[in-house]
Parts: sequence; structure tokens; C-alpha cells
Amino acid sequence: MRVLGVDPGLTRCGLGVVEGGGGRAVHAVAVDVVRTPPGEAVAQRLAAVADAVEGWIAEHRPDVIAVERVFAQHNVRTVMGTAQVSGVVALVAGRAGLPVAFHTPSEVKAAVTGSGRAGKEQVTAMVTRVLSLGAAPRPADAADALALAVCHCWRAPMLARMAEAEVRAAEVAKHHRARLAAARRAR
Amino acid sequence: MRVLGVDPGLTRCGLGVVEGGGGRAVHAVAVDVVRTPPGEAVAQRLAAVADAVEGWIAEHRPDVIAVERVFAQHNVRTVMGTAQVSGVVALVAGRAGLPVAFHTPSEVKAAVTGSGRAGKEQVTAMVTRVLSLGAAPRPADAADALALAVCHCWRAPMLARMAEAEVRAAEVAKHHRARLAAARRAR
Repeated sequence: MRVLGVDPGLTRCGLGVVEGGGGRAVHAVAVDVVRTPPGEAVAQRLAAVADAVEGWIAEHRPDVIAVERVFAQHNVRTVMGTAQVSGVVALVAGRAGLPVAFHTPSEVKAAVTGSGRAGKEQVTAMVTRVLSLGAAPRPADAADALALAVCHCWRAPMLARMAEAEVRAAEVAKHHRARLAAARRAR
Repeated sequence: MRVLGVDPGLTRCGLGVVEGGGGRAVHAVAVDVVRTPPGEAVAQRLAAVADAVEGWIAEHRPDVIAVERVFAQHNVRTVMGTAQVSGVVALVAGRAGLPVAFHTPSEVKAAVTGSGRAGKEQVTAMVTRVLSLGAAPRPADAADALALAVCHCWRAPMLARMAEAEVRAAEVAKHHRARLAAARRAR
């Protein structure tokens, strides 16, 4: 499975492609950061990010896009730009026929370091180690994009099993309701 | 000037086209609400809104898109979806070569009712009146989209004058600095 991880942002948007097998082995295919000038109009900045993501989809042919799920916690102004970028990335992926998976920052940290409250440096260190990179990816947005992609490689089988279990549970419940209704009619 | 106002939202996205002259006269060209099912994937819902906005741009040929500026105040989950939609709308507009203007809810309310703290019903009542509509546009998202478009018609000349004044002020400052530097060299 090939995953394009996107750490959304208007000023810096991290992009990282990771290839994963069934197990824990993962390797990095590409990583970069797209920058757009703060002085430019938002529509132009969003278009620059959309162009870059479309270019990466065409070049690296990922099977899925993993995007950080944005929360409004800290700087509200920044968060809104980040959410706008995440929407644009999801749109571009959807139009390219690719599934989009959102992971929260704590899910990413927990998947990569074992702790949902790990710091940026720890995430970068673990990404460098699990992907056997010669040097730590910089800036942090690049490392975060790779961490998102690794997180998706490792969480995807579990998420797929959960989705399957939900479908099965819904079927069991449906059969159960049908049998109850039949029993009521027979009475 | 023909303005497409967009009240962004994933579940309901208001679209309203208003034609304005130089003065206060404005008239409604079209209004509707795009709905996307909450059960669907976010990427598909964003694509549905993007398709609708592209369709409206092609059909109604607006000169500018006015979008509500989103703030993280109330429901954080809803606000993130709203911000994602606003990003997608800005992207679609930018790619269609149209300028995008963001107006805050209070700017819209103040433009249309005279008070930045007016309620939804008051905004709907004023939109119905200034656009001489036979009935109040429903739901509120439809009225809000028209209010955004009206707000842009009325604020645009003032915003243009402010932008011009800024350019002039920057030029004056530049000349002033150049003369100061010349005077220093002459000393």
C-alpha cells in the first residue's frame, strides 16, 4: 500500500509518500514541503497547494491519502487556513478517485512513538528511525507528513477490521430483528 | 457587478447571486441551498459542493465570489467542515479566475441591518426587503448567501477605495524615503 501523507498548512504544507507492506516494514518514497507566500490571496495559495497535491498524485500514484484531522485549539487564524487546505486536499483526492483517511495528531503520535503526547522532536526521531532515513526530515512539517503516512500504513488494517466488524454486527442485528418480527407474526 | 455569495457548510451550503449597480439598488438573480448527506465521506461531500459552485459560476457568470469568513467559536466539529468548504469554494473560484472576498458574519449583518449583532430573522427580513422578494428565502442559509452577496455589492466600492488609499500611502512613503536618502547623500 502506497500512502501520501499530508500535513496541511497554508504557509507550509508537508507532503510525504510511504510504501508499506502487511507488517511493520515501511519505506519512504518522497518527502517535500510546499510553501505559499503569506502576502498572496488565499484562493491563489490554495490553488498552489492543490496543484502540488495533484502533481504528487500523478507522479507517485498513491492508493490512499492520509490527512491530519484539524482541531480548533490554538491559533484560530492559523487553524482556519489549515482546515481550508485540508478541505482542498480532500477534494483533490476525492476527484482523483482516491480514498481519504483523517488521523488526529494524537493518533499519529501514538502510532509512531507509542505516546499520543509525544513532542515534535520525538516524532521526527521515530520517523527517521522507522523509515531508516540518513538524516532527520526538516522542517517538522515534512516529518509530520511522513508520520501521517506511516500511521496510516499501520492503522489501516485495524481500521479495515473494525469497519468489517461493524458491517457484520449490523447484519447480525438485522437478522435478529427479522427473526423477532417473524416470531411475533407466528404468535 | 454580479456577486455569487456563498454561506459555506457541509450539510447545507447557501448559494445566492445578486446583481448590483453603483448605488444601493440590488436585485436577486438566483438562490438555492446545496445539501450533502452527513453519512457520506467528506471528500465526496466536498466534491458535491465544488461541483455545484462550478455549475453556478458557469451558469450565472459572477464577477466575484463573496464567502463568509469562518471563525472557530461555537461547535468546533461543524466549524472545521465549514472551513473545509470555504477552502474548496475559494479554490474553485480562484481556478475559475474569479476574485474571492471574505466577509465576517458581523460585517454582513452590519451591512444589511445596520447592526453587527442582528439576529437571523432580522437579516432574512432585510434581505427580503432590499431585494424586493415576494417571500423570505428559506432556509436561513439561502438568506445568508444573499446577504453576503448584498454585503459585497455595498462594501466593494469602499474596500476598493481603501485598497487604492493604501497603495497611494505606500507610494508617498516610498517617495518620502527616497527624498530623505537623497538629502542624506547630498549632505
